[in-house]
Amino acid sequence: MSEPSHAAAVADLLGLYSSIQLAAFTRLAKDAQHAPDLPGQVTISRMAAGELAHLDELERLARELGADFYDTTARFADLLGDLDRRTAPGDWWERLMKTYVAYGMLADLQRALSADLDKTLRAVVEEILADNGYADYVVATVGPVAAGDPQLKARLALWGRRVVGEALGIVQRALDEHPGLLGALPEGGEADAAGRVRNQLTSGHARRMDRLGLTA
Amino acid sequence: MSEPSHAAAVADLLGLYSSIQLAAFTRLAKDAQHAPDLPGQVTISRMAAGELAHLDELERLARELGADFYDTTARFADLLGDLDRRTAPGDWWERLMKTYVAYGMLADLQRALSADLDKTLRAVVEEILADNGYADYVVATVGPVAAGDPQLKARLALWGRRVVGEALGIVQRALDEHPGLLGALPEGGEADAAGRVRNQLTSGHARRMDRLGLTA
Repeated sequence: MSEPSHAAAVADLLGLYSSIQLAAFTRLAKDAQHAPDLPGQVTISRMAAGELAHLDELERLARELGADFYDTTARFADLLGDLDRRTAPGDWWERLMKTYVAYGMLADLQRALSADLDKTLRAVVEEILADNGYADYVVATVGPVAAGDPQLKARLALWGRRVVGEALGIVQRALDEHPGLLGALPEGGEADAAGRVRNQLTSGHARRMDRLGLTA
Repeated sequence: MSEPSHAAAVADLLGLYSSIQLAAFTRLAKDAQHAPDLPGQVTISRMAAGELAHLDELERLARELGADFYDTTARFADLLGDLDRRTAPGDWWERLMKTYVAYGMLADLQRALSADLDKTLRAVVEEILADNGYADYVVATVGPVAAGDPQLKARLALWGRRVVGEALGIVQRALDEHPGLLGALPEGGEADAAGRVRNQLTSGHARRMDRLGLTA
Protein backbone atom coordinates (compact mmCIF):
# COMPACT_ATOMS: atom_id res chain seq x y z
CA MET A 1 0.00 0.00 0.00
CA SER A 2 1.43 3.37 -0.96
CA GLU A 3 2.17 5.93 1.74
CA PRO A 4 -0.27 8.67 0.69
CA SER A 5 -3.27 6.35 0.63
CA HIS A 6 -2.27 4.95 4.03
CA ALA A 7 -2.08 8.48 5.44
CA ALA A 8 -5.53 9.24 4.02
CA ALA A 9 -6.87 6.03 5.56
CA VAL A 10 -5.42 6.98 8.94
CA ALA A 11 -6.92 10.47 8.67
CA ASP A 12 -10.32 8.86 7.98
CA LEU A 13 -9.85 6.57 10.96
CA LEU A 14 -8.93 9.45 13.25
CA GLY A 15 -12.03 11.29 12.07
CA LEU A 16 -14.18 8.25 12.80
CA TYR A 17 -12.65 7.92 16.26
CA SER A 18 -13.09 11.63 17.09
CA SER A 19 -16.69 11.63 15.94
CA ILE A 20 -17.45 8.48 17.94
CA GLN A 21 -15.85 9.95 21.07
CA LEU A 22 -17.77 13.19 20.67
CA ALA A 23 -21.02 11.31 20.03
CA ALA A 24 -20.36 9.07 23.05
CA PHE A 25 -19.85 12.18 25.18
CA THR A 26 -23.12 13.66 23.93
CA ARG A 27 -24.99 10.38 24.37
CA LEU A 28 -23.73 9.69 27.90
CA ALA A 29 -24.29 13.30 28.98
CA LYS A 30 -27.88 13.01 27.78
CA ASP A 31 -28.34 9.61 29.41
CA ALA A 32 -27.03 11.05 32.68
CA GLN A 33 -29.82 13.64 32.69
CA HIS A 34 -32.36 10.82 32.65
CA ALA A 35 -30.76 8.79 35.42
CA PRO A 36 -33.31 7.89 38.09
CA ASP A 37 -30.98 8.89 40.94
CA LEU A 38 -28.12 11.27 41.66
CA PRO A 39 -25.38 8.62 42.01
CA GLY A 40 -26.38 7.28 38.58
CA GLN A 41 -26.38 10.80 37.12
CA VAL A 42 -22.92 11.55 38.54
CA THR A 43 -21.47 8.19 37.50
CA ILE A 44 -22.65 8.48 33.90
CA SER A 45 -21.71 12.19 33.70
CA ARG A 46 -18.18 11.23 34.74
CA MET A 47 -18.04 8.56 32.03
CA ALA A 48 -19.19 11.18 29.52
CA ALA A 49 -16.44 13.58 30.53
CA GLY A 50 -13.95 10.71 30.26
CA GLU A 51 -14.94 10.06 26.65
CA LEU A 52 -14.32 13.67 25.75
CA ALA A 53 -10.86 13.71 27.29
CA HIS A 54 -9.64 11.59 24.36
CA LEU A 55 -10.42 14.30 21.82
CA ASP A 56 -7.29 16.25 22.77
CA GLU A 57 -5.02 13.37 21.81
CA LEU A 58 -6.98 12.69 18.61
CA GLU A 59 -6.75 16.36 17.65
CA ARG A 60 -2.98 16.27 18.22
CA LEU A 61 -2.63 13.15 16.03
CA ALA A 62 -4.72 14.68 13.25
CA ARG A 63 -2.54 17.78 13.33
CA GLU A 64 0.64 15.69 13.17
CA LEU A 65 -0.79 13.95 10.13
CA GLY A 66 -1.56 17.28 8.48
CA ALA A 67 -5.27 16.52 8.56
CA ASP A 68 -7.90 19.03 9.67
CA PHE A 69 -9.38 17.80 12.92
CA TYR A 70 -12.83 19.36 12.42
CA ASP A 71 -12.99 18.35 8.79
CA THR A 72 -12.19 14.68 9.46
CA THR A 73 -14.46 14.57 12.52
CA ALA A 74 -17.37 16.11 10.61
CA ARG A 75 -17.26 13.31 8.02
CA PHE A 76 -19.06 10.91 10.32
CA ALA A 77 -21.31 13.26 12.30
CA ASP A 78 -24.39 12.67 10.12
CA LEU A 79 -24.09 8.89 10.27
CA LEU A 80 -23.82 8.88 14.05
CA GLY A 81 -26.64 11.40 14.36
CA ASP A 82 -28.74 9.09 12.22
CA LEU A 83 -28.02 6.11 14.44
CA ASP A 84 -29.10 8.18 17.42
CA ARG A 85 -32.36 9.28 15.83
CA ARG A 86 -33.22 5.77 14.64
CA THR A 87 -32.95 4.35 18.15
CA ALA A 88 -34.99 6.66 20.40
CA PRO A 89 -35.36 4.75 23.70
CA GLY A 90 -38.77 4.32 25.30
CA ASP A 91 -37.57 4.27 28.90
CA TRP A 92 -34.52 4.24 31.14
CA TRP A 93 -33.77 0.53 30.53
CA GLU A 94 -33.95 0.92 26.77
CA ARG A 95 -31.77 4.01 27.08
CA LEU A 96 -29.05 2.12 28.97
CA MET A 97 -29.29 -0.79 26.52
CA LYS A 98 -29.09 1.48 23.49
CA THR A 99 -25.83 3.05 24.61
CA TYR A 100 -24.46 -0.32 25.74
CA VAL A 101 -25.27 -2.00 22.42
CA ALA A 102 -24.49 0.85 20.01
CA TYR A 103 -21.34 2.22 21.63
CA GLY A 104 -20.16 -1.28 22.50
CA MET A 105 -20.29 -2.03 18.79
CA LEU A 106 -18.67 1.27 17.83
CA ALA A 107 -15.83 0.48 20.24
CA ASP A 108 -15.44 -2.93 18.59
CA LEU A 109 -15.40 -1.21 15.21
CA GLN A 110 -12.59 1.09 16.30
CA ARG A 111 -10.68 -1.90 17.65
CA ALA A 112 -11.18 -3.90 14.44
CA LEU A 113 -10.14 -1.07 12.13
CA SER A 114 -7.01 -0.23 14.07
CA ALA A 115 -5.63 -3.78 14.10
CA ASP A 116 -2.85 -2.92 11.68
CA LEU A 117 -2.00 0.63 12.75
CA ASP A 118 1.57 1.36 13.80
CA LYS A 119 2.44 0.98 17.46
CA THR A 120 2.17 4.67 18.43
CA LEU A 121 -1.29 5.06 16.91
CA ARG A 122 -2.49 1.75 18.32
CA ALA A 123 -1.38 2.81 21.78
CA VAL A 124 -3.59 5.90 21.49
CA VAL A 125 -6.53 3.86 20.22
CA GLU A 126 -6.11 1.40 23.06
CA GLU A 127 -6.19 4.22 25.55
CA ILE A 128 -9.34 5.61 23.92
CA LEU A 129 -10.95 2.20 24.09
CA ALA A 130 -9.87 1.47 27.64
CA ASP A 131 -12.85 0.31 29.64
CA ASN A 132 -14.70 3.29 31.13
CA GLY A 133 -16.79 1.01 33.30
CA TYR A 134 -20.00 1.65 31.39
CA ALA A 135 -20.53 -1.98 30.31
CA ASP A 136 -20.07 -3.19 33.88
CA TYR A 137 -22.43 -0.48 35.07
CA VAL A 138 -25.14 -1.59 32.64
CA VAL A 139 -24.63 -5.26 33.40
CA ALA A 140 -24.86 -4.56 37.16
CA THR A 141 -27.91 -2.29 36.72
CA VAL A 142 -29.98 -3.90 33.97
CA GLY A 143 -28.94 -7.54 34.47
CA PRO A 144 -30.65 -8.27 37.81
CA VAL A 145 -33.78 -6.26 36.93
CA ALA A 146 -34.22 -8.05 33.60
CA ALA A 147 -33.56 -11.42 35.27
CA GLY A 148 -36.45 -10.82 37.66
CA ASP A 149 -38.91 -9.49 35.08
CA PRO A 150 -39.54 -11.82 32.12
CA GLN A 151 -41.60 -9.22 30.27
CA LEU A 152 -38.87 -6.57 30.52
CA LYS A 153 -36.31 -9.21 29.58
CA ALA A 154 -38.20 -10.07 26.39
CA ARG A 155 -38.69 -6.41 25.55
CA LEU A 156 -35.00 -5.62 26.04
CA ALA A 157 -33.91 -8.62 23.96
CA LEU A 158 -36.12 -7.32 21.15
CA TRP A 159 -34.83 -3.78 21.65
CA GLY A 160 -31.24 -5.03 21.59
CA ARG A 161 -31.88 -6.65 18.20
CA ARG A 162 -33.42 -3.43 16.93
CA VAL A 163 -30.46 -1.32 18.08
CA VAL A 164 -27.84 -3.72 16.77
CA GLY A 165 -29.60 -3.85 13.41
CA GLU A 166 -29.49 -0.07 13.13
CA ALA A 167 -25.88 0.05 14.35
CA LEU A 168 -24.76 -2.58 11.82
CA GLY A 169 -26.53 -0.63 9.09
CA ILE A 170 -24.71 2.55 10.07
CA VAL A 171 -21.35 0.75 10.18
CA GLN A 172 -22.02 -0.68 6.71
CA ARG A 173 -22.83 2.80 5.40
CA ALA A 174 -19.67 4.20 7.01
CA LEU A 175 -17.56 1.51 5.30
CA ASP A 176 -19.35 2.01 1.97
CA GLU A 177 -19.10 5.80 2.02
CA HIS A 178 -15.55 5.83 3.37
CA PRO A 179 -13.75 2.84 1.84
CA GLY A 180 -10.51 4.36 3.10
CA LEU A 181 -11.43 3.13 6.57
CA LEU A 182 -10.57 -0.41 5.52
CA GLY A 183 -7.36 0.83 3.93
CA ALA A 184 -5.53 0.63 7.23
CA LEU A 185 -6.20 -3.11 7.46
CA PRO A 186 -3.69 -5.69 6.19
CA GLU A 187 -3.95 -7.95 3.08
CA GLY A 188 -7.13 -9.21 1.41
CA GLY A 189 -9.65 -7.31 -0.68
CA GLU A 190 -11.99 -4.74 0.77
CA ALA A 191 -14.92 -7.14 0.66
CA ASP A 192 -12.98 -9.66 2.78
CA ALA A 193 -11.96 -6.95 5.21
CA ALA A 194 -15.54 -5.68 5.53
CA GLY A 195 -16.75 -9.23 6.14
CA ARG A 196 -14.15 -9.82 8.81
CA VAL A 197 -15.03 -6.56 10.56
CA ARG A 198 -18.72 -7.45 10.48
CA ASN A 199 -18.01 -10.84 12.02
CA GLN A 200 -16.06 -9.23 14.83
CA LEU A 201 -18.92 -6.82 15.50
CA THR A 202 -21.54 -9.55 15.51
CA SER A 203 -19.68 -11.74 17.93
CA GLY A 204 -18.91 -8.76 20.16
CA HIS A 205 -22.62 -8.02 20.28
CA ALA A 206 -23.48 -11.63 21.13
CA ARG A 207 -21.00 -11.47 24.05
CA ARG A 208 -22.55 -8.25 25.31
CA MET A 209 -26.11 -9.63 25.20
CA ASP A 210 -24.91 -12.81 26.87
CA ARG A 211 -23.49 -10.77 29.77
CA LEU A 212 -27.01 -9.40 30.28
CA GLY A 213 -28.56 -12.84 30.09
CA LEU A 214 -30.35 -11.89 26.86
CA THR A 215 -30.40 -13.72 23.55
CA ALA A 216 -28.73 -11.76 20.74
CA MET B 1 -19.61 30.85 65.65
CA SER B 2 -19.49 27.36 67.13
CA GLU B 3 -17.63 24.62 65.29
CA PRO B 4 -20.55 22.25 64.57
CA SER B 5 -22.69 24.95 62.93
CA HIS B 6 -19.71 26.09 60.87
CA ALA B 7 -19.15 22.51 59.68
CA ALA B 8 -22.83 22.25 58.74
CA ALA B 9 -22.59 25.54 56.85
CA VAL B 10 -19.54 24.28 54.96
CA ALA B 11 -21.32 21.01 54.15
CA ASP B 12 -24.23 23.04 52.75
CA LEU B 13 -21.81 25.14 50.70
CA LEU B 14 -20.06 22.07 49.31
CA GLY B 15 -23.45 20.67 48.34
CA LEU B 16 -24.34 23.91 46.60
CA TYR B 17 -21.04 23.92 44.74
CA SER B 18 -21.34 20.27 43.65
CA SER B 19 -24.88 20.74 42.44
CA ILE B 20 -23.92 23.87 40.51
CA GLN B 21 -20.94 22.09 38.90
CA LEU B 22 -23.11 19.14 37.94
CA ALA B 23 -25.85 21.41 36.61
CA ALA B 24 -23.25 23.43 34.65
CA PHE B 25 -21.96 20.21 33.11
CA THR B 26 -25.47 19.17 32.12
CA ARG B 27 -26.31 22.63 30.78
CA LEU B 28 -23.12 23.03 28.72
CA ALA B 29 -23.35 19.46 27.38
CA LYS B 30 -26.88 20.23 26.21
CA ASP B 31 -25.88 23.60 24.78
CA ALA B 32 -23.05 21.89 22.87
CA GLN B 33 -25.57 19.66 21.10
CA HIS B 34 -27.29 22.75 19.75
CA ALA B 35 -24.12 24.45 18.55
CA PRO B 36 -24.45 25.54 14.91
CA ASP B 37 -21.02 24.15 13.99
CA LEU B 38 -18.58 21.44 15.01
CA PRO B 39 -15.89 23.73 16.47
CA GLY B 40 -18.58 25.30 18.68
CA GLN B 41 -19.85 21.88 19.71
CA VAL B 42 -16.36 20.65 20.59
CA THR B 43 -15.43 23.86 22.44
CA ILE B 44 -18.54 23.85 24.61
CA SER B 45 -18.35 20.07 25.18
CA ARG B 46 -14.82 20.56 26.49
CA MET B 47 -16.00 23.30 28.85
CA ALA B 48 -18.73 20.94 30.06
CA ALA B 49 -16.23 18.19 30.81
CA GLY B 50 -14.07 20.75 32.61
CA GLU B 51 -16.93 21.65 34.95
CA LEU B 52 -17.39 18.03 35.90
CA ALA B 53 -13.73 17.54 36.74
CA HIS B 54 -14.25 19.60 39.91
CA LEU B 55 -16.71 17.11 41.36
CA ASP B 56 -13.89 14.76 42.40
CA GLU B 57 -12.31 17.39 44.63
CA LEU B 58 -15.71 18.42 46.06
CA GLU B 59 -16.53 14.79 46.82
CA ARG B 60 -13.21 14.40 48.62
CA LEU B 61 -13.84 17.54 50.71
CA ALA B 62 -17.36 16.40 51.62
CA ARG B 63 -15.95 13.04 52.74
CA GLU B 64 -13.26 14.74 54.86
CA LEU B 65 -16.00 16.76 56.52
CA GLY B 66 -17.98 13.62 57.25
CA ALA B 67 -20.81 14.80 54.98
CA ASP B 68 -22.53 12.59 52.42
CA PHE B 69 -21.63 13.87 48.97
CA TYR B 70 -24.83 12.75 47.26
CA ASP B 71 -27.02 13.91 50.12
CA THR B 72 -25.54 17.43 50.20
CA THR B 73 -25.51 17.70 46.39
CA ALA B 74 -29.14 16.59 46.13
CA ARG B 75 -30.27 19.45 48.41
CA PHE B 76 -30.03 21.96 45.57
CA ALA B 77 -30.92 19.82 42.56
CA ASP B 78 -34.60 20.86 42.51
CA LEU B 79 -33.81 24.57 42.71
CA LEU B 80 -31.34 24.39 39.83
CA GLY B 81 -33.71 22.22 37.81
CA ASP B 82 -36.38 24.85 38.37
CA LEU B 83 -34.12 27.63 37.13
CA ASP B 84 -33.47 25.60 34.02
CA ARG B 85 -37.15 24.95 33.31
CA ARG B 86 -38.10 28.59 33.88
CA THR B 87 -35.64 29.83 31.28
CA ALA B 88 -36.18 27.69 28.17
CA PRO B 89 -34.29 29.49 25.37
CA GLY B 90 -35.98 30.23 22.07
CA ASP B 91 -32.88 30.01 19.88
CA TRP B 92 -29.12 29.58 19.93
CA TRP B 93 -28.44 33.18 21.00
CA GLU B 94 -30.87 32.99 23.89
CA ARG B 95 -29.32 29.65 24.84
CA LEU B 96 -25.80 31.12 25.00
CA MET B 97 -27.10 34.14 26.93
CA LYS B 98 -29.02 31.98 29.39
CA THR B 99 -25.95 29.99 30.38
CA TYR B 100 -23.79 33.13 30.43
CA VAL B 101 -26.21 35.02 32.68
CA ALA B 102 -27.38 32.19 34.95
CA TYR B 103 -24.06 30.39 35.48
CA GLY B 104 -22.20 33.69 35.63
CA MET B 105 -24.43 34.61 38.54
CA LEU B 106 -24.10 31.18 40.16
CA ALA B 107 -20.30 31.52 39.96
CA ASP B 108 -20.57 34.94 41.64
CA LEU B 109 -22.77 33.35 44.29
CA GLN B 110 -20.16 30.68 45.01
CA ARG B 111 -17.49 33.39 45.20
CA ALA B 112 -19.55 35.55 47.57
CA LEU B 113 -20.46 32.70 49.90
CA SER B 114 -16.90 31.41 50.19
CA ALA B 115 -15.36 34.78 51.13
CA ASP B 116 -14.71 33.68 54.69
CA LEU B 117 -13.81 30.02 54.20
CA ASP B 118 -10.44 28.83 55.44
CA LYS B 119 -7.51 28.96 53.04
CA THR B 120 -7.59 25.30 51.95
CA LEU B 121 -11.27 25.39 51.11
CA ARG B 122 -11.00 28.76 49.39
CA ALA B 123 -8.20 27.44 47.22
CA VAL B 124 -10.49 24.66 46.03
CA VAL B 125 -13.34 27.07 45.39
CA GLU B 126 -11.03 29.36 43.45
CA GLU B 127 -9.93 26.45 41.29
CA ILE B 128 -13.57 25.52 40.67
CA LEU B 129 -14.35 29.08 39.71
CA ALA B 130 -11.29 29.56 37.54
CA ASP B 131 -12.33 30.97 34.19
CA ASN B 132 -13.26 28.18 31.78
CA GLY B 133 -13.37 30.59 28.88
CA TYR B 134 -17.12 30.41 28.48
CA ALA B 135 -17.76 34.11 29.17
CA ASP B 136 -15.12 35.13 26.63
CA TYR B 137 -16.61 32.68 24.15
CA VAL B 138 -20.08 34.19 24.53
CA VAL B 139 -18.77 37.74 24.37
CA ALA B 140 -16.81 36.91 21.19
CA THR B 141 -19.76 35.05 19.64
CA VAL B 142 -22.84 37.00 20.68
CA GLY B 143 -21.29 40.46 21.04
CA PRO B 144 -20.57 41.27 17.37
CA VAL B 145 -23.81 39.66 16.14
CA ALA B 146 -25.93 41.63 18.62
CA ALA B 147 -24.01 44.83 17.80
CA GLY B 148 -24.94 44.49 14.13
CA ASP B 149 -28.58 43.56 14.69
CA PRO B 150 -30.56 46.08 16.79
CA GLN B 151 -33.61 43.81 16.93
CA LEU B 152 -31.61 40.85 18.26
CA LYS B 153 -29.83 43.19 20.64
CA ALA B 154 -33.13 44.42 22.10
CA ARG B 155 -34.48 40.89 22.34
CA LEU B 156 -31.34 39.63 24.12
CA ALA B 157 -31.36 42.57 26.55
CA LEU B 158 -34.95 41.65 27.44
CA TRP B 159 -34.05 37.97 27.66
CA GLY B 160 -31.09 38.78 29.91
CA ARG B 161 -33.41 40.60 32.31
CA ARG B 162 -35.79 37.64 32.29
CA VAL B 163 -33.00 35.14 33.04
CA VAL B 164 -31.40 37.26 35.75
CA GLY B 165 -34.79 37.73 37.39
CA GLU B 166 -35.33 33.99 37.55
CA ALA B 167 -31.75 33.39 38.71
CA LEU B 168 -32.06 35.96 41.51
CA GLY B 169 -35.33 34.34 42.57
CA ILE B 170 -33.66 30.94 42.75
CA VAL B 171 -30.72 32.32 44.72
CA GLN B 172 -33.13 33.96 47.17
CA ARG B 173 -34.97 30.65 47.59
CA ALA B 174 -31.67 28.82 48.14
CA LEU B 175 -30.69 31.30 50.87
CA ASP B 176 -34.17 31.15 52.47
CA GLU B 177 -34.40 27.37 52.42
CA HIS B 178 -30.75 26.85 53.45
CA PRO B 179 -29.90 29.66 55.87
CA GLY B 180 -26.76 27.71 56.73
CA LEU B 181 -25.28 28.91 53.43
CA LEU B 182 -24.80 32.36 54.94
CA GLY B 183 -23.36 30.81 58.09
CA ALA B 184 -19.91 30.63 56.53
CA LEU B 185 -19.86 34.42 56.09
CA PRO B 186 -18.28 36.72 58.72
CA GLU B 187 -20.06 39.13 61.15
CA GLY B 188 -23.43 40.83 60.65
CA GLY B 189 -26.90 39.35 60.76
CA GLU B 190 -28.21 37.00 58.10
CA ALA B 191 -30.32 39.76 56.56
CA ASP B 192 -27.21 41.92 56.09
CA ALA B 193 -25.28 39.02 54.61
CA ALA B 194 -28.09 38.19 52.18
CA GLY B 195 -28.27 41.83 51.12
CA ARG B 196 -24.55 42.02 50.54
CA VAL B 197 -24.59 38.81 48.48
CA ARG B 198 -27.47 40.13 46.39
CA ASN B 199 -25.59 43.36 45.71
CA GLN B 200 -22.54 41.42 44.54
CA LEU B 201 -24.71 39.34 42.21
CA THR B 202 -26.48 42.35 40.76
CA SER B 203 -23.28 44.21 40.01
CA GLY B 204 -21.70 41.07 38.55
CA HIS B 205 -24.67 40.77 36.21
CA ALA B 206 -24.41 44.43 35.16
CA ARG B 207 -20.71 43.86 34.29
CA ARG B 208 -21.58 40.79 32.22
CA MET B 209 -24.32 42.59 30.26
CA ASP B 210 -21.99 45.52 29.76
CA ARG B 211 -19.38 43.22 28.19
CA LEU B 212 -22.04 42.25 25.63
CA GLY B 213 -22.96 45.87 24.99
CA LEU B 214 -26.41 45.25 26.48
CA THR B 215 -28.20 47.22 29.20
CA ALA B 216 -28.78 45.17 32.35
